[in-house]
Amino acid sequence: MRIMVLGGDGYCGWGTALYLSGRGHSVAIVDNFMRRQWDHELGAQTLTPIRSLAERVKAWNELTGHTIDCFIGDVTDYDFLANVFSQYAPEAVIHFAEQRSAPYSMIDRKHAVFTQVNNVVGTLNVLYALHEHQPDCHLIKLGTMGEYGTPNIDIEEGYINIEHNGRKDVLPFPKQPGSFYHLSKVHDSHNIMFACKSWGLRATDLNQGVVYGTLTDEVALDEALINRFDYDEVFGTVLNRFCAQAAIGHPLTVYGEGGQTRGFLDICDTVRCIEIACLNPAARGECRVYNQFTEQFSVLQLAQMTAAAAEQLGLKVEIEHLPDPRVEAQKHYYNAKHSKLIDLGLQPHLLSNTLLDSLLNIALRYRDRIDPALMLPRVNWRSAHNDRKAAVCTLTGTTVA
Amino acid sequence: MRIMVLGGDGYCGWGTALYLSGRGHSVAIVDNFMRRQWDHELGAQTLTPIRSLAERVKAWNELTGHTIDCFIGDVTDYDFLANVFSQYAPEAVIHFAEQRSAPYSMIDRKHAVFTQVNNVVGTLNVLYALHEHQPDCHLIKLGTMGEYGTPNIDIEEGYINIEHNGRKDVLPFPKQPGSFYHLSKVHDSHNIMFACKSWGLRATDLNQGVVYGTLTDEVALDEALINRFDYDEVFGTVLNRFCAQAAIGHPLTVYGEGGQTRGFLDICDTVRCIEIACLNPAARGECRVYNQFTEQFSVLQLAQMTAAAAEQLGLKVEIEHLPDPRVEAQKHYYNAKHSKLIDLGLQPHLLSNTLLDSLLNIALRYRDRIDPALMLPRVNWRSAHNDRKAAVCTLTGTTVA
Repeated sequence: MRIMVLGGDGYCGWGTALYLSGRGHSVAIVDNFMRRQWDHELGAQTLTPIRSLAERVKAWNELTGHTIDCFIGDVTDYDFLANVFSQYAPEAVIHFAEQRSAPYSMIDRKHAVFTQVNNVVGTLNVLYALHEHQPDCHLIKLGTMGEYGTPNIDIEEGYINIEHNGRKDVLPFPKQPGSFYHLSKVHDSHNIMFACKSWGLRATDLNQGVVYGTLTDEVALDEALINRFDYDEVFGTVLNRFCAQAAIGHPLTVYGEGGQTRGFLDICDTVRCIEIACLNPAARGECRVYNQFTEQFSVLQLAQMTAAAAEQLGLKVEIEHLPDPRVEAQKHYYNAKHSKLIDLGLQPHLLSNTLLDSLLNIALRYRDRIDPALMLPRVNWRSAHNDRKAAVCTLTGTTVA
Repeated sequence: MRIMVLGGDGYCGWGTALYLSGRGHSVAIVDNFMRRQWDHELGAQTLTPIRSLAERVKAWNELTGHTIDCFIGDVTDYDFLANVFSQYAPEAVIHFAEQRSAPYSMIDRKHAVFTQVNNVVGTLNVLYALHEHQPDCHLIKLGTMGEYGTPNIDIEEGYINIEHNGRKDVLPFPKQPGSFYHLSKVHDSHNIMFACKSWGLRATDLNQGVVYGTLTDEVALDEALINRFDYDEVFGTVLNRFCAQAAIGHPLTVYGEGGQTRGFLDICDTVRCIEIACLNPAARGECRVYNQFTEQFSVLQLAQMTAAAAEQLGLKVEIEHLPDPRVEAQKHYYNAKHSKLIDLGLQPHLLSNTLLDSLLNIALRYRDRIDPALMLPRVNWRSAHNDRKAAVCTLTGTTVA
């Protein structure tokens, strides 16, 4: 298939682009390198020394003979995006090109507004580009399990049968997102449903859980292909962060009681889910929703599992409970359905000691790149301003006006 | 009370500002006159010759002795907005300052993006201004009944009790909005719920039905206070448009079968609902939702009622069914609850022959200002581009490059 990966230089995007290319699909990456820019802004960097997109794509070509086309630009720039759609004529477009960090969106008003405008306008542009230039192309959009929040009922995959006062309907599952970032994804989901209904577009909205890991088979081929591994408090997903903390003997930072339960998946499954969605497109006019995760854990469970695996490697690790910087339930019912991708053939890679070993070993390998000051939460959900930039200046010892 | 009306120069805003001022509240209007600008863009004008805000407010002061403060600026400009909040220190803020036309949002991509960015960013700014400067101030936000769409179950007021697989929760009522404008209001609703929960703000989200009428008691005092009466296909609400059509012998344009059923209310009730919300504020941390309408009608019913009232006045009126330019159900179940404002004391002004007479008489009085070319639908939901501007140029006989 001809597949376009928006945000293909990012964490999930890069792994996905390589996997699809390796599987014989024609792949194009669209990216504006904004994710790299955010690292500069925050004074953070990925644990793993990732190469430039040009170097990565060249290395992939030399190693495998596969070519990946690259279009450098911003999906919020419609002229650019429409031109890319016309030129590349994709059969499927995977849309990862959004600001994806909840803490980033909660830094202050500017970051909240940026996150919602960037994500909503980018997705509106994708919808219009499909409608105008590639109406048969299948949109695969990355949503998040965080759109649902933590309701006291089972979470279904996008829609729920409701019987009310003796009448019935199948309606969009009610959303209770917990940050301006998660809200932006809810906004996108509503916009996409409307576009499918009004314009007959075909879409799959993948409500993804928290992703961990970094080594997909393709990335493992060569150091030049290495993927991001974020461990900072803003962009680091929780298990990756715990592994980085364990590697330098930093306590594993659990927010509050740690009873916050979420769906998780290995990045190896992210890339497989995306191909499954591509190969089984939604019908014209259909907006499908799949919950894309393989296992549920509480944050405290993950901390305990990481600590145990670290101990096996001779690392001494403590678990520290910090005041929760987020506004969220620290204990709650959680049972989210996730059978639709499995019905289509997904074989989950479950979290094991071997995998935790491998994650910890990556963290150990690059431990010299870890800045412990980046691990403590400095973005408080309750504050209108979090001086994230000032803190960076203090750390580097440089005064910036 | 000290009440700030964002969008106080618009249709509902002006009527509300005068009503609250007449009731003895201290009132400030915040507006950027964008609504007047849209008329210029579309080559349209209100049926009634409204005066400038400066003239209106001066006339109100001369007639009643009441003063209304005016702050001219854009709510998407945070520095301006935050400054106004600090300076005026309102106890309640009524937020009408949004792009409120569904067809306008569906003209093309630029109008869709403008509508969502303008509305979402404006509301985010209001939320941050409250959090930073007036955390105890009560936000009264105008939503729309169109957020719910037309589900096959009874529509509750904002939240619904759901029992699912043996467990229960009270969750936000699922939303199925039918235009990029309606979607922008759904986005706002989610953002507001989150801000109340995270920051302890107090908010009332009023999901208003379709408003008709123009003469509130205060507006009726003097010609200089006259309110907008929009009849064009983009900003004209359906009953006002039917009256303008009847006044010039134009067929009443019903889209499709006309079975589209909605909640309606007289602008006299809009202003009363707003005061009721002000006098009964939400608690800190609470995001209440009230459905603000008094009666349900189908579009065809309204056309028939208008035609009958027109006939009594000696006007001959036909009903014409046009292909529906919108993507919507033309026949559907509709039963929306609306008891919460009545429980707080609202006494509805129901639609009567007398009221239809009065509306028709206003339309007759200003019939010379009616441009019949503005009444036919030229914005098709299914098209990515609707050449709304080009049509205006043709009508005026001027060629614009």
